Amino acid sequence: MLKEFASKELPKVEKEMCDFINAHTTNKDLKEAMLYSLQAGGKRIRPLIVLSTAYSFCGQLGVNAYQTAAALEMIHTYSLIHDDLPAMDDDDLRRGKPTNHKVFGEALAILAGDGLFTSAFQSMTQMIMEPEEKLLLIQLLTKAAGTEGMVAGQAGDMAAEKTQVSLEVLKRIHREKTGALLTYAFVAGGILAQQTEYVLDQLQQLGAHMGLAFQIRDDLLDVVGTTEDLGKKVGQDARQEKSTYPRLLGVEGAKQALVKELSAAKKIINQLMEVDDFDAALLEDLVRMFTL
Amino acid sequence: MLKEFASKELPKVEKEMCDFINAHTTNKDLKEAMLYSLQAGGKRIRPLIVLSTAYSFCGQLGVNAYQTAAALEMIHTYSLIHDDLPAMDDDDLRRGKPTNHKVFGEALAILAGDGLFTSAFQSMTQMIMEPEEKLLLIQLLTKAAGTEGMVAGQAGDMAAEKTQVSLEVLKRIHREKTGALLTYAFVAGGILAQQTEYVLDQLQQLGAHMGLAFQIRDDLLDVVGTTEDLGKKVGQDARQEKSTYPRLLGVEGAKQALVKELSAAKKIINQLMEVDDFDAALLEDLVRMFTL
Repeated sequence: MLKEFASKELPKVEKEMCDFINAHTTNKDLKEAMLYSLQAGGKRIRPLIVLSTAYSFCGQLGVNAYQTAAALEMIHTYSLIHDDLPAMDDDDLRRGKPTNHKVFGEALAILAGDGLFTSAFQSMTQMIMEPEEKLLLIQLLTKAAGTEGMVAGQAGDMAAEKTQVSLEVLKRIHREKTGALLTYAFVAGGILAQQTEYVLDQLQQLGAHMGLAFQIRDDLLDVVGTTEDLGKKVGQDARQEKSTYPRLLGVEGAKQALVKELSAAKKIINQLMEVDDFDAALLEDLVRMFTL
Repeated sequence: MLKEFASKELPKVEKEMCDFINAHTTNKDLKEAMLYSLQAGGKRIRPLIVLSTAYSFCGQLGVNAYQTAAALEMIHTYSLIHDDLPAMDDDDLRRGKPTNHKVFGEALAILAGDGLFTSAFQSMTQMIMEPEEKLLLIQLLTKAAGTEGMVAGQAGDMAAEKTQVSLEVLKRIHREKTGALLTYAFVAGGILAQQTEYVLDQLQQLGAHMGLAFQIRDDLLDVVGTTEDLGKKVGQDARQEKSTYPRLLGVEGAKQALVKELSAAKKIINQLMEVDDFDAALLEDLVRMFTL
């Protein structure tokens, strides 16, 4: 069901992203570099979470849901472009294609990231909706993407490369680096579906488990996956002597940790079934998608 | 008068910036890198414009004015950090101190820029004011800082380094690269002072002239100034064969262009004197500050 939902709904997110960039980027080179990374594919997990969460509660999607999903994917794409830079992870390949700086040079890659970042927030300010609700969506995204979330996590991740960190520190880094945006995706879906504080709190917890599961799975795939499957070089973490779950827990220990997080996620989804009109099918499929 | 105003009011902007970063940055290294560039001084032109414009209309300043001014300076500081990177302008010295990447390394400098950017918007979403007014302030800033403004201008500026551009192209680049944020500063001041559409439109035009004047003056100082006075290497533009006003118009021609823009600015300030309670003194001083 999630697969059909994604095939039907994600193209509308692609369109939102490209239409906005095309309409609101005055510099030709910059526009090309931004669109290159946006159109390089990827699984669109974050937009999919926004849309499937919103849909689970109300069985329909307004234009604001696509716009929020698009903004979130722009933020994610900016972070990938900056993360791939030579000074950061120094990756040549992303989603099976040369990374942004490999095609456009470092300077334009930095600016393409900066541009996607701004465009995300610019597009959200232009959504037609209640000002309070719009401000909440924007505020939570600045927090998730910023120095209490993703950017802090990336700084922590960099520091962790130079040293072995404890499981606790690793969890915090990932909660910030990838967890914050994934959690935002669930909560934003709930806000778009006009859910109560209680439900938003449940979605926050669901996002935390799913975010951790996502990262454990990502780390595991770097060990057990292939470059062909993933569209990026595998074994990078080990080469860079990164702290990862398989490194700290062993491959089997990491697999168990993944199962544990996904069980916790399922439990929350079960609890949400008490909410009127909530249909668990899409979110249950999402949990299945996060298994190895 | 502007000097006393600046001495009295700008420290409150400094405090807003540092307090916010200290309270909302979880990673220690990241926080240090962000505060380093924020505290490296600088003339704080943009916050000064926000505050002096708002004050000119209503003779007082609320906490939102300092917060908006602080957010704008954070955006400006992020752009300097990214602009100074080796892949961009490759500057070692900024405001008389080593640039961010010289002290913290390129990776953390990129993240410090990203972090300041997010913090600027995060702090604005937290202001206590009418949601519509707050959204307008945020929306205009995303536009001024983004792919229809500063980021586009930086991309255009980079392309212009490789070739000689016409005066018209140079003006457009500067209108985007520095003009957009300076114009925002004037307009934001007007919004904070609850001014009419007509006044905001006048402020927009005032900002356009002052922005151009600012860039012409900056280009001229790179030719006629000293490293000691400016706190950054002079003669960089010529070494990098950049298109600048002195290069396209000659030093005398550029000086005349500066005078022309400042005259136009003065004319608009005179027109604003028709607005009830408007006191032109601060803005007149500002124009004086922009002369060579």
